[in-house]
Amino acid sequence: MYPNWILQRAYLTPLREALTYEGQTWTFNELNELAIKRARQLTALGIQEGDRIAIMGPSMPNLIVMMYACMHLQCELVMLNRRLSASEIAYQLADAEVVALLVADEDANKLPQNAPVHLFSVIEQGIEKEVTIAKEWPLEQTTSIMYTSGTTGFPKGVRQTVGNHQASATASVLNLGLHIGDVWLCAVPLFHISGFSILVRSLLYGNKVHLYEQFDVDAITHNIVNGDVTHMSVVAVTLERILHVLEEKNAKASSRFKMMLAGGGPVPVDYLQRAGARNLAVAQTYGMTETSSQTATLASEDAMLKIGSAGKPLFFNQIRIAEPNEQGEGEICIRGPHVTPGYIGRFAQKGATIDGWLHTGDIGYIDKDGYLFVVDRRADLIISGGENIYPAEIENALLAHPAVKEAGVCGKDDEKWGQVPVAYIVLKEPVSVEELISFCKHNLAKYKMPKEINFVHELPRNGSNKLLRRKLKEL
Amino acid sequence: MYPNWILQRAYLTPLREALTYEGQTWTFNELNELAIKRARQLTALGIQEGDRIAIMGPSMPNLIVMMYACMHLQCELVMLNRRLSASEIAYQLADAEVVALLVADEDANKLPQNAPVHLFSVIEQGIEKEVTIAKEWPLEQTTSIMYTSGTTGFPKGVRQTVGNHQASATASVLNLGLHIGDVWLCAVPLFHISGFSILVRSLLYGNKVHLYEQFDVDAITHNIVNGDVTHMSVVAVTLERILHVLEEKNAKASSRFKMMLAGGGPVPVDYLQRAGARNLAVAQTYGMTETSSQTATLASEDAMLKIGSAGKPLFFNQIRIAEPNEQGEGEICIRGPHVTPGYIGRFAQKGATIDGWLHTGDIGYIDKDGYLFVVDRRADLIISGGENIYPAEIENALLAHPAVKEAGVCGKDDEKWGQVPVAYIVLKEPVSVEELISFCKHNLAKYKMPKEINFVHELPRNGSNKLLRRKLKEL
Repeated sequence: MYPNWILQRAYLTPLREALTYEGQTWTFNELNELAIKRARQLTALGIQEGDRIAIMGPSMPNLIVMMYACMHLQCELVMLNRRLSASEIAYQLADAEVVALLVADEDANKLPQNAPVHLFSVIEQGIEKEVTIAKEWPLEQTTSIMYTSGTTGFPKGVRQTVGNHQASATASVLNLGLHIGDVWLCAVPLFHISGFSILVRSLLYGNKVHLYEQFDVDAITHNIVNGDVTHMSVVAVTLERILHVLEEKNAKASSRFKMMLAGGGPVPVDYLQRAGARNLAVAQTYGMTETSSQTATLASEDAMLKIGSAGKPLFFNQIRIAEPNEQGEGEICIRGPHVTPGYIGRFAQKGATIDGWLHTGDIGYIDKDGYLFVVDRRADLIISGGENIYPAEIENALLAHPAVKEAGVCGKDDEKWGQVPVAYIVLKEPVSVEELISFCKHNLAKYKMPKEINFVHELPRNGSNKLLRRKLKEL
Repeated sequence: MYPNWILQRAYLTPLREALTYEGQTWTFNELNELAIKRARQLTALGIQEGDRIAIMGPSMPNLIVMMYACMHLQCELVMLNRRLSASEIAYQLADAEVVALLVADEDANKLPQNAPVHLFSVIEQGIEKEVTIAKEWPLEQTTSIMYTSGTTGFPKGVRQTVGNHQASATASVLNLGLHIGDVWLCAVPLFHISGFSILVRSLLYGNKVHLYEQFDVDAITHNIVNGDVTHMSVVAVTLERILHVLEEKNAKASSRFKMMLAGGGPVPVDYLQRAGARNLAVAQTYGMTETSSQTATLASEDAMLKIGSAGKPLFFNQIRIAEPNEQGEGEICIRGPHVTPGYIGRFAQKGATIDGWLHTGDIGYIDKDGYLFVVDRRADLIISGGENIYPAEIENALLAHPAVKEAGVCGKDDEKWGQVPVAYIVLKEPVSVEELISFCKHNLAKYKMPKEINFVHELPRNGSNKLLRRKLKEL
C-alpha cells in the first residue's frame, strides 16, 4: 500500500506552492482542501469509491480539483479528449460503462445527446456529504483511463495504475534530477498522459505546476525568458512556435530554465540546433499512453551526438527489439513497472503484454552505444501536432458513407503539424469531396479530418488483399 | 521485475564517475566490468545464484566490487560488522547458514577458528568461470542481510530486499532532490545500512561516491571546505568532530556542499547551531536496519523550528503512534515499501510487521504540525557513536562468568560517544573487575564493552522480578 498522493503531499509540504494559473496560486494544502470538499459534493451526488467516472474540461484549476476529488474517492478517471466529436465521446462512454460524467460548463455542448452529465458549476454549488478519504492506495488501483486509437480503428481504453504513474515519475526524476524550486509549465492537455503526468510529478516531487489553458505562445515564451518555469513538455509543433517567437524577439531562455521534454514524435534536427542557439535544452522522449509517459529520454547533452535518437530507457525500464532484421531493426518492445496492466471495455480480454513485454508496433533499432532510434511509427500511425491518428479510424468513418467502396488513409508531411491525414477513395457511386467531408465531421475530431480526399480507381493491396498504406503516398 | 541496478547504471551512464578513493576514480562501466570479472571468479569457486554469502572487509573499493559481484550473482549478502568479536561473528555465520565467507585479507584475524574463508586476495587471483548475469531482479529478492541486536540479546538477521532498497532511495530523492553532479562522501560503514544505502543511491541516481576507509576528520573536513562532496551521512559524534575542525580552522562548508544527513540517534541542539554558523545544512533523520535507511527526515529549513524532531516521513512511508498516552506518546510504528519483509535464521518465524506496520519499540509522538519526535529509544537501547547496543547482550556476556549472579546494564551519558554502557553486578563469589573485562572481551565487540562495572547487593526489579534498567542509573 502507498500513501494517497494528494493527502501525503499536503501533509509533507502544506505551504509549498502547488499550482499557478492566471496570476493566482494555490498551495498543496489549499488544493487538497478544495479536492476534499469536492469529493464530499461528489459523494452527495451518489458517486462512490471505485466508480468509473468520465471527466472533461479545459485545462483550468477547477478541472484539477475535480480530478483530485475523484482520486480521493479512488474512482477510475476516464479522461475525455476535448477535441473528439460527440459520436467518438459516445463510443468511449459506452465502452467504459462510466457511472457518471463530469463536464466543465464550457464543454457541455461537446457531448452526445442524453449523456448523464454533472456540470462542474452544479457540483461546485452542491451540498456536501461526509466521506472517508482513503489514506492509502494499492499499487494495482486504476488511477486513470485514456483512450488511444488502435490499428483496428476502435479506440482502446488504457488502464494507468497507481504503480504505473509512480514508477514513471520516480524513473523520470532519476534521469532529470529534482530541485525544490522546480516549476513545470503545463500547456499540454491534462487528458493526455503528457499533461496528466505533470500533475503526478507535482504531487510526488512537491513542485509547482504553472498551468496555461491554451498554448498561448507569447505568454509561454515570455515565461521561458523572464518567468518561473524550469521544465516544460512540448511536441515538435509547439517547440517550433516557441523558437519562432524567441528568434523574432532575439531572446534566450532564462538561466533558470532547465529542460524541455519533447515527445509525441520526432523533433527535426533543425529545431534542435535552433533551440541550442536560444539556450533551450531539449530532451527528446519516447513514450505512449500505455507506458504512462516517458519510456526513453535522450539527455540534452547527447542531443547533437545522437541526432534522431529517443535516448536510453529510464532507470526502471527496459527496451528490446523483437525479431530484428539484418540492419537490427524490429518491433520496439518495452518492459517495466510503468507499463499498463491492460485495457478496459471491448479490449479488456486483450492482454497488453506478452511475457511482460509491451509490443508497441513501432519499428526501431538500438545502436552500438545502446541508444534507441525509432524508425517508423506503429502501423502507419500519423502524428499530427502531437496527437496520434490511426488511419483505420478515418477509413472507417469514410466507409460508412454509402457512396464509398474502399478507403485508404496515410500521413502526408506538413510543415506546421508534422503530418496530416490524406484519404484515397474508390467510389461505388458519384459523390463530392464536400459531401464526404461534411459526412465525416459528425464522427471525427477536427484534427483527424482528412486534409485531402483523392478519388482513385483502386487501392494498393498485397497478395492477401491487405491494404498497403505506405504505397498510398505513391499514388 | 526490475533491472539489475549495476548493469542498468553501467548501460545508461557508462562514463560517469562512480567511485573515488584515495585519488583514484572508477566509472560505472569500470566498476561493472570489475564486478562481472569477480562474479566469474566467485562462480569458479562454486558460488551460485541465490547463495547466502557473508562478507567482511574495510571500506575500500575491493569490498564494493566484491559486493557488486555477489549482487550480480543474486546472492544474499550477509554484511558482517568488522567491530564484532570472533564469537559474535560465529553466531551470525551459524544463524545465517552461509555457504561462503568472503573476507578482506586485513580482516582475516577477526574470524572465528575453522570458518570456511575465501580471502579477497585469493579470489582476485583466481580463475574465472563463465556465468550468466541476470538482467532483472525480482522486487522480493533479498539483496542484503544485516544483523541488529534485539531486546533478547540475540542479534536478528534483517532481510533488505531489492524493493526495500529501491523504495528507500526513490523516497529519499523526492525529499532531498538530485543533481547530476552530486557526490556522496561515505565514511560510515558499508556493513551498516547507512553506508550500504549510499551505494544503492549511487547506482540508482548515477552519482559518485567519495569513499574513505576511516573517518579521517581532517581529510573529510578539507573535502567539505574545498572538495567535491555535496552530501554526507554522519552520526552526532562525527558531526561534532567535523564542527570542531571547522571551528579550529575558522572555515566554512563550501557553497557546493548541500546536506548532511544525521542519523543514529538525536543530534544535540548545540551542534545544529554550530553547524549553521559553518554553512553546514544538517537534516536529522530517523531510520533503522529494518527500514533500509531513512524513514523520516527533518528538512534543514525546519531544523531550528522543530528542534529535536526527526521530521516527517518520506513520501512513500507512513508513521503512526500506537496506543498513545494522554500526552500523545506511544510506540512509533512504520509502514511502507521500505520495511523489511522479516528476519532469517532463529527469528525467521517472527514476523517483522503486524498488519503491515513495523512496531519499532521506540517511543515518540507526532506534534500538531505532523512532525515526529522520538522520546525514548526502544527497550533501553544504548546508542554509542551511532552503533546500537542492547543491554541484554552485554548482560548475557557477563552472566556467562561463573562468579556473576545477576547483571544489569544501562547507558550513561558521554560527551564523546553520546552514551556508553555501564554494568551493575551482583556476585556469587569474589572476582575482580579486570577479570570480568578480560572475560567479556572474547564475546563482545569493543564498542559494547562496559565502560564501568559496579558491584551491588541487588538489582532494581519490579513485582514480577523484571529488571528495571532505567532504575540502574539511580544506583
